[in-house]
Amino acid sequence: MTLPRIAIDAMGGDEGVRVMVEGAALARRSHDRFKFLLVGDEPRIKRALETHPGMSGASEILHCEDVVAGDEKPTQALRRAKTTSMGLAVNAVKAGDAGAAVSAGNTGALMAMSKLALRTMPGIDRPALAALLPTLGDDDVVMLDLGANTECDARNLIQFAVMGAAYSRIVTGREAPRVRLLNIGTEEIKGTDQLQDAAAALRSATGLSLQFDGFIEADKINRGDCDVVVTDGFSGNIALKAIEGAARFVTDLLRNAFTSSVRSKIGFLVSRPATELLKHHLDPNNHNGAVFLGLNGVVVKSHGSANAQGVANAVAVTARLLENSITERIAADLAEVDRTRVGEGAGK
Amino acid sequence: MTLPRIAIDAMGGDEGVRVMVEGAALARRSHDRFKFLLVGDEPRIKRALETHPGMSGASEILHCEDVVAGDEKPTQALRRAKTTSMGLAVNAVKAGDAGAAVSAGNTGALMAMSKLALRTMPGIDRPALAALLPTLGDDDVVMLDLGANTECDARNLIQFAVMGAAYSRIVTGREAPRVRLLNIGTEEIKGTDQLQDAAAALRSATGLSLQFDGFIEADKINRGDCDVVVTDGFSGNIALKAIEGAARFVTDLLRNAFTSSVRSKIGFLVSRPATELLKHHLDPNNHNGAVFLGLNGVVVKSHGSANAQGVANAVAVTARLLENSITERIAADLAEVDRTRVGEGAGK
Repeated sequence: MTLPRIAIDAMGGDEGVRVMVEGAALARRSHDRFKFLLVGDEPRIKRALETHPGMSGASEILHCEDVVAGDEKPTQALRRAKTTSMGLAVNAVKAGDAGAAVSAGNTGALMAMSKLALRTMPGIDRPALAALLPTLGDDDVVMLDLGANTECDARNLIQFAVMGAAYSRIVTGREAPRVRLLNIGTEEIKGTDQLQDAAAALRSATGLSLQFDGFIEADKINRGDCDVVVTDGFSGNIALKAIEGAARFVTDLLRNAFTSSVRSKIGFLVSRPATELLKHHLDPNNHNGAVFLGLNGVVVKSHGSANAQGVANAVAVTARLLENSITERIAADLAEVDRTRVGEGAGK
Repeated sequence: MTLPRIAIDAMGGDEGVRVMVEGAALARRSHDRFKFLLVGDEPRIKRALETHPGMSGASEILHCEDVVAGDEKPTQALRRAKTTSMGLAVNAVKAGDAGAAVSAGNTGALMAMSKLALRTMPGIDRPALAALLPTLGDDDVVMLDLGANTECDARNLIQFAVMGAAYSRIVTGREAPRVRLLNIGTEEIKGTDQLQDAAAALRSATGLSLQFDGFIEADKINRGDCDVVVTDGFSGNIALKAIEGAARFVTDLLRNAFTSSVRSKIGFLVSRPATELLKHHLDPNNHNGAVFLGLNGVVVKSHGSANAQGVANAVAVTARLLENSITERIAADLAEVDRTRVGEGAGK
């Protein structure tokens, strides 16, 4: 099987070209069959490639100097889809020049450009933003939507469940990933009408490649006994950021506590390997790469402040999705939803 | 000033009478001017009081054997408002026999009973559940609503802001607590119509005893530069539980890391004071006591699994609210909202 190329928006993100190119080169070490289309300022890309000869041989450069600004409104950025590094990377996917695009630029602009250029897949009303979160178990948990859709109806949630399960199958290897809907309680009567309709449809569905386990509360997301957490984009964004903030809060407290006395400092030094492990596990760079699911093509958002290792993680996620033909898998699962008419009558 | 009594539902919670009585006795050490009405099984309460003679002298017992079950539906519990310990504690507030009620029982039932018996204050459409969360700063942050109202309009959010600020004034001593609305971004265009309407009204308001600082994202809640986080009950519940879960996740990881090698174990022992500090800071018992704001009377929910120290914290919160006449303060602030017509036209 010939793998499609990965288009990299080399200009997005806080650090720009150097970090994006280095990240892709790092990812290539474990995914060496991939080729790249590097979109951005050619002289700077060439300079960045000098220290990565293997990457250089596997890359084509698409020159462009225009960049979408971090604070630019999506509507404004859309007008420059044909001239910016982000727009050209996404359009390469549309044209079949690449199988996926990775960008660390403005999320709203990337989403708008991706939707316009790639369109949603047949059977999907709205794409969703999905990410992997660490758990106490062996595998990461997939959570979606994380902010693409502020409000969602039951049909959207059901489609998110199918897309999230397809993603989780690649991550966990499970035939039927365990899916739950994020809610404020686990009793059937809890939450909004949309959640109850979606739960009823998923409970009665047969033939889906997922196991629906009902509702989950936000304090259980990282426990490791659920593979996919489905939610609307508003709640998902709140949950994701609350988890990030609380994890940082605890590690900040810990740092303060450990530097508060000589005795603690010594304890900290002696137990350094343990705290390094913790740091590794919680480092957002190790979980970088949010995926837009539901489009005719793969688009991955790398965090704007990710370092080269973070970008490498996002590119590796992209490579795994392409190796496992995520778009085709979702299409096959959606056909099943269609056949068994899951969620018929659900929605507004 | 004569302080009103505190009614304690002695039968609610996982541990029941002993923990509730011991918790109230502990709280009384720092709030020794308060008297108590202990509602529940008289023989068991008397037994629990034997080891707390000071508390015994400050308490009256209201005998009752009926208890609201933890999994009981609120509608069902409401029918037994006149016979259960929870119902009688709340009704004591209604009758003026007590100024506040504290219960560790079923949250939904407590909310339903409180609303029915105490009614919402003039100027408040819906009461809200508020709690204190730890921060990196000197003071706790007040967050509300945490689950009383799944969906909220702009008017509700504005009223929550006023109530939360009144609570925060007692906690922080600030004349104008810094208030923010929880959202998925800080730009003015982010979020739902309700959030944008509420923000516009709060931005243009004058004469309120609060400083409105715009939106806040969920990863900033614990940072300590905001005194009140206002949100609908669905998002608030998600955020609260996500924070609790993530904090537990990190401390679990830490425990695993620290017990993974002899070297780490030694480091852990040497730095014990630091980790104890962390544990103290994150222990939910130290932040126990969620307050129903907006009713004609104070009702405080203690966590069902709280230990005596946790109950003491909830009772101490109750005492501070009564000492500072929270209900009268909110009423005065609401009169100001009314006078300046904040949020006129906001809402659906």
